[in-house]
Amino acid sequence: MTSQDIFDETRKHFDLPEGVLYLDGNSLGPLAKGVPGRVAQLVQNEWGHHLIGGWNAAGWVDLPARVGDRIGRLIGASAGTVVMGDTLSIKVYQALASALELRPDRRVILSDSNNFPTDLYMAQGLIASLDKGHELKVAVPEDVESLIDESVAVLMLTEVDYRTGRLHDMARLTAKAHAAGALVIWDLAHSAGAIAVDVKGADADFAVGCTYKYLNGGPGAPAFIYVAPRLADQARPALSGWFGHAAPFAFEPGYRPASGIERMRVGTPPVIALGALDAALDVWDDISMDRVRARSIELSEAFIAVVAAGCPTLELASPRDPWARGSQVSYFFEDGYAVIQALIAEGVIGDYRAPSIMRFGFTPLYLSLDDVRRAASILVDIIATRRWDQDCFKIKGKVT
Amino acid sequence: MTSQDIFDETRKHFDLPEGVLYLDGNSLGPLAKGVPGRVAQLVQNEWGHHLIGGWNAAGWVDLPARVGDRIGRLIGASAGTVVMGDTLSIKVYQALASALELRPDRRVILSDSNNFPTDLYMAQGLIASLDKGHELKVAVPEDVESLIDESVAVLMLTEVDYRTGRLHDMARLTAKAHAAGALVIWDLAHSAGAIAVDVKGADADFAVGCTYKYLNGGPGAPAFIYVAPRLADQARPALSGWFGHAAPFAFEPGYRPASGIERMRVGTPPVIALGALDAALDVWDDISMDRVRARSIELSEAFIAVVAAGCPTLELASPRDPWARGSQVSYFFEDGYAVIQALIAEGVIGDYRAPSIMRFGFTPLYLSLDDVRRAASILVDIIATRRWDQDCFKIKGKVT
Repeated sequence: MTSQDIFDETRKHFDLPEGVLYLDGNSLGPLAKGVPGRVAQLVQNEWGHHLIGGWNAAGWVDLPARVGDRIGRLIGASAGTVVMGDTLSIKVYQALASALELRPDRRVILSDSNNFPTDLYMAQGLIASLDKGHELKVAVPEDVESLIDESVAVLMLTEVDYRTGRLHDMARLTAKAHAAGALVIWDLAHSAGAIAVDVKGADADFAVGCTYKYLNGGPGAPAFIYVAPRLADQARPALSGWFGHAAPFAFEPGYRPASGIERMRVGTPPVIALGALDAALDVWDDISMDRVRARSIELSEAFIAVVAAGCPTLELASPRDPWARGSQVSYFFEDGYAVIQALIAEGVIGDYRAPSIMRFGFTPLYLSLDDVRRAASILVDIIATRRWDQDCFKIKGKVT
Repeated sequence: MTSQDIFDETRKHFDLPEGVLYLDGNSLGPLAKGVPGRVAQLVQNEWGHHLIGGWNAAGWVDLPARVGDRIGRLIGASAGTVVMGDTLSIKVYQALASALELRPDRRVILSDSNNFPTDLYMAQGLIASLDKGHELKVAVPEDVESLIDESVAVLMLTEVDYRTGRLHDMARLTAKAHAAGALVIWDLAHSAGAIAVDVKGADADFAVGCTYKYLNGGPGAPAFIYVAPRLADQARPALSGWFGHAAPFAFEPGYRPASGIERMRVGTPPVIALGALDAALDVWDDISMDRVRARSIELSEAFIAVVAAGCPTLELASPRDPWARGSQVSYFFEDGYAVIQALIAEGVIGDYRAPSIMRFGFTPLYLSLDDVRRAASILVDIIATRRWDQDCFKIKGKVT
């Protein structure tokens, strides 16, 4: 079976607009065909018909764990070690607050300067709240490894750089951090559904991620958190909400954490959003991440080849070695914003990340080799003919 | 215009199952007819068609503020002072963390023993994280006022008691707290859409609430937070996520809070859930909370009258004065769990709260006087004939 087969099996599950080449699934995944029906069924039948009874009759109460297990399979986590809820920002905070308490004698959070800003912001907010002299040490990605020492309480990294796609070596950095007595939090925002992740094999302590990118959960879909089973019963939830209580419906006055990963639940779960995500995950049922990864590399290499041939001077912002990058390819271009707008006008959706990065995501479930080559040709043509150099493409609106 | 008119105007907007008398809208509001269409449109057209472009083209990025303004009107908040997101637990944490920092020399969080547990749990979690000697002082509701003194940093109360419906006097307690130099956080979970709230008139510092009860936003619908404008620019967000940043898409390495209430946003907004809630709020467009309140009192008084006539010994857990309770009526009954199950079997949905509370919510938008009297008669009859006294009603499953 060649990796092309993934596309043949899965493209039919997606509802993409006519004429669009969507290379932005790393920002917001597209709609899977099963989602509208599942959401309608949840809203009309489960909520409309069962009303409050839906919590039990329709299994809403268990959705965060059930969906968590489905994502767990894609990131190498055992059943019962991943739970859904909140946003990635909140999950970063939970992991970080727990990890810092597990290393009470250390004060350094080590991260890299290309980490997604919200991870750094959440750390800054937590440090200010704690007011105990913690320090967020932010190094360039290449220097992180050499800065791991016994001052580090927590190494907090996003595995795949959201701008360049550069990949950290999860297993090696985790081992190194452990050797220095530090804990590690991996943000899998651009990894889950994109590359083969093995949180268990890498012995990660915490992992968090969002589900609206490669997992196609929909805009603002719930986040996930993984805690290594060896730590899950020790980790004190700073955000100690009633759904993480050992007995939420006993309405006890004092917080008692549930055992294991369940304590990382906080408030009432976002049922409709979880239903949408659950339906989106059906697409992944028979898919191995190794196949997705192999195919993603074929796609990104094909894209790079066309661009390199047509625009040899365009500077790659991503590692040239496909195994050293995630499922995206980025280029530096000063007028990248205008180029992306010109591409969008011609049906090729990529995105722009300040200050000068053009970013293209490769999602084998609904992109073919031909799609990717066509998108690259249009990019080459827009740059070669300077079609981006028009006022209409340069006025920045809100950028997401 | 009599208050009956509310029902005549609004009942048609709800899709309630045939044969059900729903007195549990204080736990999960029912489906408004406009919701499935709006959700389908959002999923299929906005997400499916606009893909990543939906953030701007479909206005997703502004949804938390736009929906916040609609809720603001119902709680007496000015435009631009309420924002949506996360869960009520998270919003309690945000308010509390900000409030404690605004009173750095004080160590007491004062609350009451009937506060909803998650509020107390979140406070306990925050206190443990801060580890600075804060104390959560929990008094019986009647004693709270007398315990407000200059040791109190924050008074944190739920306006309407989730079990008994007892109402705190928001304006008086807020004034008393301010006189002692304390800040006040009001949890409006059982107030928003239930009674006439005036956060501005009462000079509340912070107010938070959920939207899946009287506001009918759907299971796990997003929460809201209000911060008094005089404090909004001083309040430091402990949960400093990128959507609360002054320039989220500049991807700056350091957190700079947005001005005003926007800084209380955290992560990526839950778009589908916000769309459902937005549609549910259409029902409220021409409704004044004073009319809802007047009618709610007629309904609860009618319920109490029927029960008092039929079961004179059944002990009311709610205040007898309707102006001293929210939009619910509760009774103590040792076998309350079984009674509620028997009621549900006969189409009357109320709920049970441990250890012995039977709880009934009154929601004038879709309950008529006749509905309420019929529900009360069935309750009377079930108790009089001991129809609850069967094994099938006594086996406790999961209780929500």
